[in-house]
Amino acid sequence: MTPELRDSRFLRAARREPVDTTPIWIMRQAGRYLPEYRAVRDKVSLIELCKRPDLAAEVTITAQRVLGTDAAILFADLLPILEPMGLKLEYAKGEGPIIHNPIRTAGDLDRVKELTDVGEMEFVFEAVRLVRAGLPPDIPLIGFGGAPFTLASYAIEGGGSRHYIHTKTMMFAAPQTWHRLMERLTTSLIRYLTAQVQAGCQAVQVFDSWAGCLSPADYRQYVLPHTKRLIEGLPRDVPVINFLTGNPALLPLLREAGGQVIGLDWRVDLKQAWAQLGYDVGVQGNLDPISLYADLDTLRQRVRAVLDAAEGRPGHIFNLGHGVLPDMPHEHVKALVEMVHEMGTR
Amino acid sequence: MTPELRDSRFLRAARREPVDTTPIWIMRQAGRYLPEYRAVRDKVSLIELCKRPDLAAEVTITAQRVLGTDAAILFADLLPILEPMGLKLEYAKGEGPIIHNPIRTAGDLDRVKELTDVGEMEFVFEAVRLVRAGLPPDIPLIGFGGAPFTLASYAIEGGGSRHYIHTKTMMFAAPQTWHRLMERLTTSLIRYLTAQVQAGCQAVQVFDSWAGCLSPADYRQYVLPHTKRLIEGLPRDVPVINFLTGNPALLPLLREAGGQVIGLDWRVDLKQAWAQLGYDVGVQGNLDPISLYADLDTLRQRVRAVLDAAEGRPGHIFNLGHGVLPDMPHEHVKALVEMVHEMGTR
Repeated sequence: MTPELRDSRFLRAARREPVDTTPIWIMRQAGRYLPEYRAVRDKVSLIELCKRPDLAAEVTITAQRVLGTDAAILFADLLPILEPMGLKLEYAKGEGPIIHNPIRTAGDLDRVKELTDVGEMEFVFEAVRLVRAGLPPDIPLIGFGGAPFTLASYAIEGGGSRHYIHTKTMMFAAPQTWHRLMERLTTSLIRYLTAQVQAGCQAVQVFDSWAGCLSPADYRQYVLPHTKRLIEGLPRDVPVINFLTGNPALLPLLREAGGQVIGLDWRVDLKQAWAQLGYDVGVQGNLDPISLYADLDTLRQRVRAVLDAAEGRPGHIFNLGHGVLPDMPHEHVKALVEMVHEMGTR
Repeated sequence: MTPELRDSRFLRAARREPVDTTPIWIMRQAGRYLPEYRAVRDKVSLIELCKRPDLAAEVTITAQRVLGTDAAILFADLLPILEPMGLKLEYAKGEGPIIHNPIRTAGDLDRVKELTDVGEMEFVFEAVRLVRAGLPPDIPLIGFGGAPFTLASYAIEGGGSRHYIHTKTMMFAAPQTWHRLMERLTTSLIRYLTAQVQAGCQAVQVFDSWAGCLSPADYRQYVLPHTKRLIEGLPRDVPVINFLTGNPALLPLLREAGGQVIGLDWRVDLKQAWAQLGYDVGVQGNLDPISLYADLDTLRQRVRAVLDAAEGRPGHIFNLGHGVLPDMPHEHVKALVEMVHEMGTR
C-alpha cells in the first residue's frame, strides 16, 4: 500500500487515528440517483454492468469524483458469487434477483459447491484493478461481499423475503444442513474477498443486510461462528467494516464477530452504540437515509446530530444507516458530503 | 369487572401477580391460518368481516375456544378509524389497504378531522358486546388500536411502505404539520379505545407496528409525547399493552410512553429486555413466529427458551413476537398453547 493511501483520511479513521475532518462515503454511492450512473444503465442491464469491468469501474470512479467522498466502493452486487457455487441467478426486470434452484433440503445442498477457482469472478477483480488505476492516489477503494447469512437467505428463499420462512425453518429444524451451507458460503467468501484485496482494495465491507430478522440467541448460534470465521480469514492488513441492519440488539454480537469498524444503521443512537461496543473499535454511520429528502437546513441539523453523537472521537466514518435510494436528490447527496467535511473538522 | 375476570390468569399476569401457569394469547389468533376463520372469509371480504359485528364476534370467540388461549383479542383492523376522520380507505384485493387521499401537506391536514362521534365506530363496540357475552366468563377480551405513529404512516403513505419516505419527510421537514396530525389521531384513539373498554374489553393493546423504522432520537421527539398522551388518556382500570416491533433500541422509550405491559418482538432477548425495562412492568412475548413452521420438538425447545428467559417471574404473558402468518400450520398453533400451559407451571 502506498503512503498516500495509508495516510488517507478514511484509512486513518478506520485505524482510529486522528483526522482533519470526518471521512465520509455512502452506501450505494454509485447508484441510480446519479445522472452519470443512469446514463450508463440506459445502455446495459444491472447484471451486464456488474460483469463489464470497464463500465463497473467507470461508475465507481465517477461517483467518487462527483461526490468528493473519502473512499470509493466497488460497483458490484452481492449475489453473483452464488453462480459459480451452483445457483441459477436471474435479475428479472423490475422484480429483483431470483434464484431458480433454491436450497431447501439436505439433498439440495449437493448442488452447492465451494468457490474453488476465484477466476470465475475475474470480472470483479478486473474492475478492482481498473478502479484502483483510475482513482486519485489518496482515495482508498472498498471491496465488499454479503455476509454468509444474507447470502444463505437469498440461496434458500430464492430471492428477497419478508419473513425468511424457509431460511429460518432450515436453521431451526435442520441445523446440520444449515451449518454445512454456511460453511461453504464462508469458505467461498474468504477466497472471494481475499482476491478482491489482492486485486487492489484497501478495505472490505461485509454486508449482513438481512440478519436483523434474527434474535440474539439465533444469531449467536447459527450465524456468529461463520461471520467470525469469515472475518478472521481475511487479509490482516486491510480493515474490515462489519455491517448489519435491522436489529440493534445484535450489535454486541456483531462486535464479537469481528471487524475494525462496526457499521451502524440509523435505528440506534451512535453515541450509545459506540459506548456499548467499546472505543477500541471504529464505528461507521448512521444518518437516516430518508433525511436526504428533507430541505438542506433540516439535513444539516441531522448531520450535525450524528457528528455530535460521535463527539469528534477518532474512529468515526460518516455514512448513511443504509444505502441511497434511487430517487434521492443527487444535489442533496453532494451537499451531505460537503456538510460532513465542513462540520466534521477538529 | 366480575371477580372471575379480575382473577383470570391473563389479568393477574398483567398486574404482575403470581399465576398457576404462564398465560398465552397470540397476535392475529383469529386469522387465516384457522380453517374456522377461512370458512367465514369465504363468504365475506376482510372489511365486511370487520364491519359485521356478528361475524367479527364469531371468529373472535371461535379462535379463543379452538386454541384455548387465556384471552381473546377482538377481530378488527387498525385502519377503519381513519374513515370517519376523513380518509378514503379501500382494501384492494391482494394488495393490502390503500388510502386514496393521503396526507402530504399542511393543506391536506384540513381534511383530517378528529373522531368526535364514536358512534361512527359502533360496529366495533357492538362486536365487543357480542364477544363479551359469548366468551367464557373467565376469559378477558383485549381491545386494540394502532399507535398514532403507525396510523399516521398509513395516512401519509397511503398504504403500506418500505422506507416511510413521505412520513419521515413530513416529520423531519414539516414538524408542525406532523404534530398536528399526531394530535388529531391521538385524541381520536383515546375516544375510540375508551369506548372499546366501555363496551366490554378488559385490556387494550396499542400496536406501533411500524415505529421500528425510527431512531431513538426521532421516536423521542416525534412519537413519544403522543403515545404517552394516548396511554395516559385511557381508562385507569384496564391494563394497556404497549407493543412495538422492529427496533429493540426503542424499548426504554416505549417504557417511558407507558403501559402496564410492554410487548416485545422476537429480535430481543426477553431476559435482557426485562432487566433493562425494570421488573415494575410486565412483558409480553416473544417467540419468533417462524418457529411455528418447525417440527413440534423444535418448537418445544424454542418455547422452553422463552419461558426460561422469563425465569417464572410474575408478569410474563406469552405471545409471538409478531402475528401468526396465514399459512402457519394450525395444529402447531394449538400445540403451542398447550406447551406454554404445560411448561409454564410454577
